[in-house]
Amino acid sequence: MILPHPSPLSQAHYSAAELSLDDTTLLLLDQRRLPVEETYVEIRDVGAAAEAIRELVVRGAPAIGVAAGYAMVLAAREAASAVDFAQALEPAARLLVDARPTAVNLRWAVDRMRSLARELGRASAAERRERFAAEARAIHRADVEANRTLGRLGAERVPDGATVLTHCNAGALATGGYGTALGVIRAAIEAGKQIRVLADETRPVLQGARLTAWELARDGIPVTVITDSMAGARFAAGRIDLVVVGADRIARNGDVANKIGTYGVACLARMHDRPFYVAAPFSTVDLETPTGAAIPIEERRSSEVTHAGAVQHVPAGVAVWNPSFDVTPARLVTAIFTERGAADPAESIACQG
Amino acid sequence: MILPHPSPLSQAHYSAAELSLDDTTLLLLDQRRLPVEETYVEIRDVGAAAEAIRELVVRGAPAIGVAAGYAMVLAAREAASAVDFAQALEPAARLLVDARPTAVNLRWAVDRMRSLARELGRASAAERRERFAAEARAIHRADVEANRTLGRLGAERVPDGATVLTHCNAGALATGGYGTALGVIRAAIEAGKQIRVLADETRPVLQGARLTAWELARDGIPVTVITDSMAGARFAAGRIDLVVVGADRIARNGDVANKIGTYGVACLARMHDRPFYVAAPFSTVDLETPTGAAIPIEERRSSEVTHAGAVQHVPAGVAVWNPSFDVTPARLVTAIFTERGAADPAESIACQG
Repeated sequence: MILPHPSPLSQAHYSAAELSLDDTTLLLLDQRRLPVEETYVEIRDVGAAAEAIRELVVRGAPAIGVAAGYAMVLAAREAASAVDFAQALEPAARLLVDARPTAVNLRWAVDRMRSLARELGRASAAERRERFAAEARAIHRADVEANRTLGRLGAERVPDGATVLTHCNAGALATGGYGTALGVIRAAIEAGKQIRVLADETRPVLQGARLTAWELARDGIPVTVITDSMAGARFAAGRIDLVVVGADRIARNGDVANKIGTYGVACLARMHDRPFYVAAPFSTVDLETPTGAAIPIEERRSSEVTHAGAVQHVPAGVAVWNPSFDVTPARLVTAIFTERGAADPAESIACQG
Repeated sequence: MILPHPSPLSQAHYSAAELSLDDTTLLLLDQRRLPVEETYVEIRDVGAAAEAIRELVVRGAPAIGVAAGYAMVLAAREAASAVDFAQALEPAARLLVDARPTAVNLRWAVDRMRSLARELGRASAAERRERFAAEARAIHRADVEANRTLGRLGAERVPDGATVLTHCNAGALATGGYGTALGVIRAAIEAGKQIRVLADETRPVLQGARLTAWELARDGIPVTVITDSMAGARFAAGRIDLVVVGADRIARNGDVANKIGTYGVACLARMHDRPFYVAAPFSTVDLETPTGAAIPIEERRSSEVTHAGAVQHVPAGVAVWNPSFDVTPARLVTAIFTERGAADPAESIACQG
């Protein structure tokens, strides 16, 4: 099955997650195979969707949220005739929420579908199906719109001629479309500015090398890939003007969980007196999490570190640590851009709520 | 050909560089193939030696110095009957010095052999051969002894129970034997201390994952491998007590060139108020280089970053930057350990000269 071009929601010629026009199939661009291959995985039930989220077919907090919304549509098709619709959806909801622990957008999207299920307690099966598909598409559409809004906001802080360092992929591939950190860059370019991007390769899964480079090159945006260990030397040489990254969860006090290595970048930005910006839809802000210390940090299998493809780098039997995220304290964050405004996290991010 | 076990000079059961007992062959442990295979490359002329140095069969500043000394023995065998012995050796000397630009030990070892050649202007061919082999072995032996001395010195600063972060490989594999940064760790353990090592994998060539993990595991020293991007999170969690790294060149003012990423580690150590130590033989100190700004930084081919084995991560046509070293300014270095003493680089390292 081929993705409808362009995406009806983001207008892009590729998309991390789309629902087929007949509402039966979730299409996920297989991000494990980029940049070598651009292929879509067809998902028809919620179990396969949870597996795809766990295995990083789709990744990036907002994109996982969009995919989870669509996965709930698949679950709702099966449960549409249940007497207790909301109850019948609970196993699917829990399966999705448990797929990955750190990105709060996943829980946020599932909770939104749960609320709708409760509203539809007396609705017909056909109405339940239709309203679920419409709601999931609304989540997707709102994510793209949020990115365009926060992108414009963030772009105001990006000077013409700037070299921008980013870590991991917070682009169209990580969201419903357009991107958060890369949305800021796209908006700056749309505003007529000349921007160069420096992309950390982002070990261990190499989202910067594989995904950020792919989507920026596709848009003709100048990008240079470096290993994560090279950012320091670029800062020291005065060759980085600012940093912008995405987020997987933002605590009430403004602490930011994002891809492992983000904290080190924030430390470098502070030591070299450069701004460190975070761009994320407001669905990434978790008002129930008081500080970064309360954010669960996923640890993934050691083979992500020990191997590259079939080649083993780390000798057998040697211990490995593989957390997928770290927490950047609010004091190191210059500003957070969401669709509700730009927040100085020294003030509480909660003021936006 | 099998390496004589143990090495006559370092007493280790493996060695980065050894001269065969009949002085005809330089044996290099092929570090590109570790940890998968432990094999030695047999080198019989200086051209092959320079190529092996360029291609990282042998790497690590002191080990390159030792290998270059032995390579000059091979050159001296061919030139032994020349009327102008020193002049006859010049092409070989230049070939070696040009093989890699940053590690000053390479030039230092070649210069020492050049001086000897001038001394041997009237010597017989047999004497030239014999004295060259003896001098190269003396360089090797002195490097091992320097490491044991600076290791003991550095170990005094390592508290019992410490977790020590290291970057790249500054171990037995990077030296004549015993190691510089890992020599400090070995000496601390020999002094009865419990030490754990955290090893940055060290992209792009993965010397930490492949080499540091291999040699520490072989000695039964507890080691955990992390990606370079994970060190920040370990510092933030208070799980790193100190850093010790090697050096490729130390400028007169105490600035330190070492593997790319070292500077970022030094920044993290400073932000988290942890000591950052450099361990290196005095042959790494270059009194002719006033500051780090004058140290030439090698840039290597982009495929080191774009590929892992045959797999291409970075999309074709995307720019890559691949410097092999960075410079850590003296102000971020807590102390430098050489066999001549421990220097606070806030004072001039040149005072040791």
